[in-house]
Amino acid sequence: MIHAAAKIQAAGGVRTLAFDASAPLQLANGEHVAPLTVAFETYGALNTDRTNAVLVCHALTTDQFVASPNPITGRPAWWPRIVGPGRPIDTNRFIVICANVLGGSMGTTGPATLGPDHQPNGLRFPPITIADMVRAQSMLIEALGIESLFLVIGAGMGGMQALNWVSAYPKRAFACVTVAAAARQSATNIAISELGRQAVMADPDWRGGGYTAHGVRPSKGLAVARMAAQVASLSEQGVRSRIEDARQRERFKFDADVGTHGAIFVERFDANSYLYLSRAMDGFDLGADFGGRLANAFQGGSTRHAVFSFSSDWRFPPADGRTVARALIAAGADTSFVEIDSEKGHDAYLHEEPEFEATLTGFIDSAASARGLSLQGGGA
Amino acid sequence: MIHAAAKIQAAGGVRTLAFDASAPLQLANGEHVAPLTVAFETYGALNTDRTNAVLVCHALTTDQFVASPNPITGRPAWWPRIVGPGRPIDTNRFIVICANVLGGSMGTTGPATLGPDHQPNGLRFPPITIADMVRAQSMLIEALGIESLFLVIGAGMGGMQALNWVSAYPKRAFACVTVAAAARQSATNIAISELGRQAVMADPDWRGGGYTAHGVRPSKGLAVARMAAQVASLSEQGVRSRIEDARQRERFKFDADVGTHGAIFVERFDANSYLYLSRAMDGFDLGADFGGRLANAFQGGSTRHAVFSFSSDWRFPPADGRTVARALIAAGADTSFVEIDSEKGHDAYLHEEPEFEATLTGFIDSAASARGLSLQGGGA
Repeated sequence: MIHAAAKIQAAGGVRTLAFDASAPLQLANGEHVAPLTVAFETYGALNTDRTNAVLVCHALTTDQFVASPNPITGRPAWWPRIVGPGRPIDTNRFIVICANVLGGSMGTTGPATLGPDHQPNGLRFPPITIADMVRAQSMLIEALGIESLFLVIGAGMGGMQALNWVSAYPKRAFACVTVAAAARQSATNIAISELGRQAVMADPDWRGGGYTAHGVRPSKGLAVARMAAQVASLSEQGVRSRIEDARQRERFKFDADVGTHGAIFVERFDANSYLYLSRAMDGFDLGADFGGRLANAFQGGSTRHAVFSFSSDWRFPPADGRTVARALIAAGADTSFVEIDSEKGHDAYLHEEPEFEATLTGFIDSAASARGLSLQGGGA
Repeated sequence: MIHAAAKIQAAGGVRTLAFDASAPLQLANGEHVAPLTVAFETYGALNTDRTNAVLVCHALTTDQFVASPNPITGRPAWWPRIVGPGRPIDTNRFIVICANVLGGSMGTTGPATLGPDHQPNGLRFPPITIADMVRAQSMLIEALGIESLFLVIGAGMGGMQALNWVSAYPKRAFACVTVAAAARQSATNIAISELGRQAVMADPDWRGGGYTAHGVRPSKGLAVARMAAQVASLSEQGVRSRIEDARQRERFKFDADVGTHGAIFVERFDANSYLYLSRAMDGFDLGADFGGRLANAFQGGSTRHAVFSFSSDWRFPPADGRTVARALIAAGADTSFVEIDSEKGHDAYLHEEPEFEATLTGFIDSAASARGLSLQGGGA
């Protein structure tokens, strides 16, 4: 059941939903994006009642390939421990949808996609917000014929989207899981991502954003930016060890581009996309949009929430999770806050964390049961 | 009373104490620096008992010109509110000594000074620590004929030096003031400074550290690094405003080098010096050198301490100050911890903060009185 103004296409292993110009995406700043294309992946099958859909919102440096290898970069699925057959988000039971975010560089419209002149949009692309990303996802979900999600879940920038989703569409998600995220970007995070952006823009090959037309890429600047994301995902101890290792290896060395994943990121991630997405994160302050009281962002909803934080995550520390949980409870939402004791920092959610997986499974199973979803797909 | 192996020189408005090769600086890593030159400034006069000396330790991006304009950069004194006639550190009463740190680029031996081949040391300069900086200062203080300081004081990297000073020389400081600092560099700070370093090294004009020989400077990378220091000195709200202003000015722009002070920094601060000093900060962990128990670093001392933190300083948050104060108290030191309520972030100590100035004045006056120092110079 695809929207009349949209059609599904596939090329090079990337599936997209292309809206035509009659269905523009309205942005928070008054501008619009048209035509809009949203790249997405699905895993599992929609049940007949259309009540088993899970939307996974990806983080800054990941993409829609949550449970399968990325055919372009060759990078494996980024959340295989959580999404798949028999995993906490069981694709035998749920249909899982993951869309490349607005402004991303894996098929969804953004600075890397071509404008009417067949040149990349580059800096002509309008500034975007987390709310704009969510609106684009909402268009996709509607076009897929899904009125209401069973679950919206995300970590980091994805967690911001999940919170924004339940705020914008209080009746369209039965459950929401926020992992290692915040309702407002911290000064630490803003400072680190601004440094990453400045490093990109300081690269002579950035060419004022027009690198594609010059046949170059600001690889060194992007490598620094990627390192910003990477270092910031380590625990306090992880950061120390990394720097200590570097010190012992060589006195001083430009090593931001070391490592396979790093090279893939630098090769494939569009530098301008990094600028747009990181700035969208920096501008995220959900409470500010509601008179400075975060609880007001969640009024009138009936979504049940689980908020996860990891003890060693200094980018999105447990205090941020507690702030979200407090606001949800103040808004009358059924809310669990879970702080997982972990030494793995922000990226703990990507690694083996038995307590996280067990608690997440419990929350999802209980919510599924409350929505009348059977264990193996199908509706009530 | 200058050390036999050292002589005072002055050139271009910069005063130095040059040790000859018979007085090498022993580094923590077993290497040594010889000959060592220490650039320094003094304000006020030493009393006959030599008991009124104050050592001010400067921060990462400042220098020895604490109370007078820098003749090279033209930058005004960086701490005129605190150091000067009638100020909390009253130069009518004390002799104030401030030395450019080891590895700095304002006259003290470091990567920017010339090696035996008349080329800058560059990366041939050995890696240094905060303890090494303190050891160089100790050689200066001894050479000036001062056995024991009345006060050692510093903020940020300077605060680290002050703590290291009283730990290394427990009998050589009557009082110690630590401002907006920590006994151990945090992951946030390490991540931000590593990004600054990578931005410098990513600049094609860094040339593997050999930029001087090529007649170039990694100005863009250094501008990013300097922005790292600058953004990180703002309060949480200050960071937000800065980014918001940038967003409103222009979509995306390399603006790390905007502003007069920024330009001066980028023109005058040696890029390699930034690498060395920031890494010395990152490696600072005073407790780790004492079996992981910070209190052990301060055993056997009789120094009285004041530890200042600013409420909005997220780089060196009040929790860091409390940790230092707790360790000092556990070591039996007479210690006051003062958290100043301020919206000015890490740099609050440079701005008008009446409560900070009043409390600092009270602490210094009381300590001076305990040491038998009269109000207008002179000894007991």
